[in-house]
Amino acid sequence: MNRDALIQQIKSKKSFLCVGLDPDMDKLPKHLVDEDDPIYEFNKAIVDATAPYCVSFKPNNAFFEAYGLSGLTSLERTLKYIKANYPEHFLIADAKRGDIGNTSAMYAKAFFKRLNADAITVAPYMGSDSVKPFLTFKDKWAIVLGLTSNEGSADFQQQQINGRELYLKVIETCAQWGTDENMMFVVGATKANLFEGIRKIIPTHFLLVPGVGAQGGSLQEVCKYGLTKDIGLLINASRSIIYASSGEDFAVKAAEEAKKMADEMAAFFS
Amino acid sequence: MNRDALIQQIKSKKSFLCVGLDPDMDKLPKHLVDEDDPIYEFNKAIVDATAPYCVSFKPNNAFFEAYGLSGLTSLERTLKYIKANYPEHFLIADAKRGDIGNTSAMYAKAFFKRLNADAITVAPYMGSDSVKPFLTFKDKWAIVLGLTSNEGSADFQQQQINGRELYLKVIETCAQWGTDENMMFVVGATKANLFEGIRKIIPTHFLLVPGVGAQGGSLQEVCKYGLTKDIGLLINASRSIIYASSGEDFAVKAAEEAKKMADEMAAFFS
Repeated sequence: MNRDALIQQIKSKKSFLCVGLDPDMDKLPKHLVDEDDPIYEFNKAIVDATAPYCVSFKPNNAFFEAYGLSGLTSLERTLKYIKANYPEHFLIADAKRGDIGNTSAMYAKAFFKRLNADAITVAPYMGSDSVKPFLTFKDKWAIVLGLTSNEGSADFQQQQINGRELYLKVIETCAQWGTDENMMFVVGATKANLFEGIRKIIPTHFLLVPGVGAQGGSLQEVCKYGLTKDIGLLINASRSIIYASSGEDFAVKAAEEAKKMADEMAAFFS
Repeated sequence: MNRDALIQQIKSKKSFLCVGLDPDMDKLPKHLVDEDDPIYEFNKAIVDATAPYCVSFKPNNAFFEAYGLSGLTSLERTLKYIKANYPEHFLIADAKRGDIGNTSAMYAKAFFKRLNADAITVAPYMGSDSVKPFLTFKDKWAIVLGLTSNEGSADFQQQQINGRELYLKVIETCAQWGTDENMMFVVGATKANLFEGIRKIIPTHFLLVPGVGAQGGSLQEVCKYGLTKDIGLLINASRSIIYASSGEDFAVKAAEEAKKMADEMAAFFS
């Protein structure tokens, strides 16, 4: 999907919500557990219920890999279902891959060609040749980890390199390898006051923002410092939406939760 | 596998070779392509041929994921075959995972419980809570990226943090989260002169060393600076062994190549 199509969808829906799919068998509604493919049935219901309120879906690979081949079958079915029924939604494989050049190229092939995702999250530690193979596919995106929402981001990302934090160096350097049409950055909502410095380096790139919801980040704060004229944000919520209820009404409650966030976002469109 | 068992195997074989399994369909011997599961057949033949000369196998996840569910089936079959037939070999899943705590925990479950690997490679950029979940399984190992063998290692890993390279900070910090019984580090052979500084920080940890062979690193140089009294090194070679021949003699040639490296290693045991 190209940048224009993404922006157009955001503006027409007045939403920049991304729904994260982290299906954990221990948390699925009990009545789904006896289905042939509970994870797929769960995702399908969540996707159908929340699609009107979001512009993007983000399946989290770990939650599928944990169930081996059956989990990976559920992942493939989920991706196919989304692509077939909601082709306008921006589909992010949250896999945080990154390796030497020839290996990253294999990952790019796996996620862009076989799984047909629009984007994949990428870990930057191994540098240029680990990131660049994800930038060679038309209308596909690398979403590079910049400043993550977790506690551990203090260990390295926020350490100073020549008087400046590593995450700023990472964002600035990686931005030179791509454009705002094939690269985004992950920036956690839990660090909203730091968006200002990031926007000075990348004024137009989209940011994928986890951490609103279960992790405690504030949508208002993120928008205050992160919004651009094209919005420029994809705000992800996973657990707060998909596990809004563990009963038979889980999809209804997920839709309510997604709608609540989308309504809050609508206020930023004028 | 625990540290003592690994050291004992190394000493009894006089080898610290790890054979990397990067099965690329475009490079497999032609006569295997018509098999039901060419990747598995290839791996099985390589494993059988090289097992006497190496102490570890390292399947590279990307090369399986690139072929979707059939590739992942080949991966599971390969891992099962190795565990069943060569249980004394140290089995490394080269997957370079790392995410927020609950997600890393799912990856740990996937690789240690379902796939029964002894170790997984881990990307450190997201810090403590992304690494620690891999340290909670008895006799299982996190192999954290320290200084990688690729060109891109200059972009961030070799940048200075308070007058000291990031990779040293990463190694020093991560080493505090685990012990030399559940953590190793990836250090590329292409930077052999830097092993001295690394050994000052972690004198006893095992290092997984890619970059000897196809990438041009020198075994002699690595050993000069990296060896410990328990050896403390696993030297990986992938392409130079598994693609030593593309003919029907590929396994014989792979064994010859592995034996050549093991013979060179034997000189370091006295």
